Amino acid sequence: MAKDVGILAMDIYFPSTCVQQEALEVHDGASKGKYTIGLGQDCMAFCTEVEDVISMSLTVVTSLLDKYGIDPKQIGRLEVGSETVIDKSKSIKTFLMQIFEKHGNTDIEGVDSTNACYGGTAALFNCVNWVESSSWDGRYGLVVCTDSAVYAEGPARPTGGAAAIAMLIGPDAPIAFESKLRASHMSHAYDFYKPNLASEYPVVDGKLSQTCYLMALDSCYKQLSHKYEKLSGKPFSLSDAEYFVFHSPYNKLVQKSFARLLFNDFVRDPSSVDEAAQQKLEPYANLSGDESYQSRDLEKTSQQVAKPLFDAKVQPTTLIPKEVGNMYTASIYAAFASLIHNRYSTLAGKRIILFSYGSGLTATMFSLQLRDAVHPFSLSNIAEVMDVDGKLKSRHEFPPEEFVETLKLNEHRYGAKEFVTSKDTSLLSPGTFYLTEVDSMYRRFYAKKAIENGFAPTSNGVIANGH
Amino acid sequence: MAKDVGILAMDIYFPSTCVQQEALEVHDGASKGKYTIGLGQDCMAFCTEVEDVISMSLTVVTSLLDKYGIDPKQIGRLEVGSETVIDKSKSIKTFLMQIFEKHGNTDIEGVDSTNACYGGTAALFNCVNWVESSSWDGRYGLVVCTDSAVYAEGPARPTGGAAAIAMLIGPDAPIAFESKLRASHMSHAYDFYKPNLASEYPVVDGKLSQTCYLMALDSCYKQLSHKYEKLSGKPFSLSDAEYFVFHSPYNKLVQKSFARLLFNDFVRDPSSVDEAAQQKLEPYANLSGDESYQSRDLEKTSQQVAKPLFDAKVQPTTLIPKEVGNMYTASIYAAFASLIHNRYSTLAGKRIILFSYGSGLTATMFSLQLRDAVHPFSLSNIAEVMDVDGKLKSRHEFPPEEFVETLKLNEHRYGAKEFVTSKDTSLLSPGTFYLTEVDSMYRRFYAKKAIENGFAPTSNGVIANGH
Repeated sequence: MAKDVGILAMDIYFPSTCVQQEALEVHDGASKGKYTIGLGQDCMAFCTEVEDVISMSLTVVTSLLDKYGIDPKQIGRLEVGSETVIDKSKSIKTFLMQIFEKHGNTDIEGVDSTNACYGGTAALFNCVNWVESSSWDGRYGLVVCTDSAVYAEGPARPTGGAAAIAMLIGPDAPIAFESKLRASHMSHAYDFYKPNLASEYPVVDGKLSQTCYLMALDSCYKQLSHKYEKLSGKPFSLSDAEYFVFHSPYNKLVQKSFARLLFNDFVRDPSSVDEAAQQKLEPYANLSGDESYQSRDLEKTSQQVAKPLFDAKVQPTTLIPKEVGNMYTASIYAAFASLIHNRYSTLAGKRIILFSYGSGLTATMFSLQLRDAVHPFSLSNIAEVMDVDGKLKSRHEFPPEEFVETLKLNEHRYGAKEFVTSKDTSLLSPGTFYLTEVDSMYRRFYAKKAIENGFAPTSNGVIANGH
Repeated sequence: MAKDVGILAMDIYFPSTCVQQEALEVHDGASKGKYTIGLGQDCMAFCTEVEDVISMSLTVVTSLLDKYGIDPKQIGRLEVGSETVIDKSKSIKTFLMQIFEKHGNTDIEGVDSTNACYGGTAALFNCVNWVESSSWDGRYGLVVCTDSAVYAEGPARPTGGAAAIAMLIGPDAPIAFESKLRASHMSHAYDFYKPNLASEYPVVDGKLSQTCYLMALDSCYKQLSHKYEKLSGKPFSLSDAEYFVFHSPYNKLVQKSFARLLFNDFVRDPSSVDEAAQQKLEPYANLSGDESYQSRDLEKTSQQVAKPLFDAKVQPTTLIPKEVGNMYTASIYAAFASLIHNRYSTLAGKRIILFSYGSGLTATMFSLQLRDAVHPFSLSNIAEVMDVDGKLKSRHEFPPEEFVETLKLNEHRYGAKEFVTSKDTSLLSPGTFYLTEVDSMYRRFYAKKAIENGFAPTSNGVIANGH
């Protein structure tokens, strides 16, 4: 069986168009700090009329292949995780096949995985399992997470975002799976869902969704600790992983989540937290599960107690989710990308625990072991390719009014046919794909903005229809 | 690594409500034989207002667990393939978690896989790979294919159908994967898709879809033959598999497909077909690919030539698809179930080749080796549990007018909220789940028809909301 299977390479794309949360607070008449401190968010990316989940995934996949020098023929499996439905039958993966068909490679397994923000994790597990299975043919797997998170006007709107992430999968990876250290919690819930098929927007019960998230987190952490202890014979606590990475609908929930893990440690074994923390958490030791989810005092106290550990073990993962917003399936991997960006030189030899959550609900906590690897698959090269700082710095801030106008147009265009876009690519980086037209049969056409100083000056050609 | 991983057990459910294709021809004013001979279909199942893809999958999963005596705690992975979207974010898998949660099992990986009729095959591959991977925890996988195929009034309407199939996955299986004998063809096409989000009905280009299907078939067959020859050093032809199982949108396409494979054999190596066949196919030997897809003469001649082999190698797979119609993701596995039903006593030791196709497009040809296995996982027990004859015989034929009325009601209800169904269960078999209500928040409620003479007399309880 292939060894140290995991993520060999990553790239991230998010729209360069964004709106500042502080400006949005003013525009929405919200109290000062409601979005920036209450939600913990700084900025939010969004797609204009020329971008969507298909264009973003075309952009990030071509970028990854190009920047790591991967021959498209070397991809044997391609899977997409997304909850942004543009077609209820035709997968996003089939749009991406355009990249590979022109190189004569159509023998690529995999389709789209769907359950809210969890689809990318399902796709990732599927790809890793494929490499470890007898059906692996020695080629790479490729996982794409792509979503545009938009909400109707109201309290959930500032929790949007948009991005696509691509991850190359294979053996001897710098980011290897500890496959036995994994626990899931799956359950039937209506916390966030999209039953209104004609609308881009979800139905959300914000309070319920937060409780579902924390309950799933508790359940996964308990099971993962149990599995660890069974395997190793040693007790498990927060100190057994260097960093914790969470699906991040908004940063505040990540703060609450980490504090919740510390509270879990305390309840299971008070001695696993320091004495000062024990004293502060003691009053909550005998709360029932339900009581503990409702207690604002516990929430506040545990966050206070967890703050130093949070700064060490979680803070380095929060950059992109705070700056770009909720990216649904891409959110947790954007948090992980932030960690690589911030800490690539010190990660080898470290264990990272990730928590993936999708409403409805599906959740898994799993473990990665980071390792030294040779170029182009070194952690430092992954950080360089992703160029998070460069991408964040070259963004275009929209005033809230223009953001709202853009969402109105997209709302109108969602599920529509027979329109052409402005084809205005002035705000797009070179190499970015964009939507040009949806014809009378709902067929979608994309083009690629030329890479000016690159070796593909004619790459502005329309990606033609499949037949 | 686990050995002989594959399908341990199967069950199939299709609605007992159906319409005869002959009656539909008369009703639609179609020429006699248009549906029965032209499409090759006999009958078509459909969901009334009390059934949908969620209820059918609840029915088939509980039935499989019950009939094979599987403890719900023994399921470690559950994946669904479907292209019938009731919610764009919340997976069908999360509805099925209701069955497992009440037994305290929430640690079950997997979500929904999506691409037209191919999603079930993707789910199946994912489950098999999981059992072969280092993350397997020794429990069973469970794959569910569930779809309701309905079309707007017009020529495609008689190609509908509905069913759900469940398959239990594990090692030492009577239906084991030959994992190296597999070839895919994936491509960007608009042959059949569902871009009109508010409508249950697809956009279909029937002629294009047939050509896409046959091109993907050719591509997969060529690659699979090549892989076989590389592995074994021997030439591959139709004679190397005992049976061929096709995704079956309608039976006529299955006839054309098998004939196409024989034509492939002839083109690759004329001596692989008998002399009479060689003579008849000779005039078509030099057609280009495109010409060969357009030639009605070749289609007719190759079907004639292939007829005896078709009767031997394909005919036993056609029963359920002809009687129930296109079941989308379940279609190919319903064809395979037909084979087990018809030939269970002689299948051990035989190789079966399957061709799975999903528009958009994704296709894979793969190989199974059938084996003796111990009860309850013997082929004869699988045939007995599925009880295909019993299920077909106990159906209720609707006159076409009532079928059309039913589709109108379902059309109206698609994506709607705040309605209750008639709760009329008179036509449902005992143990069948049915939809009772969709509330003002689009939340769906199901109940189970009591098993009268069974051990679960109180099982008519409503499956409550998840929280």
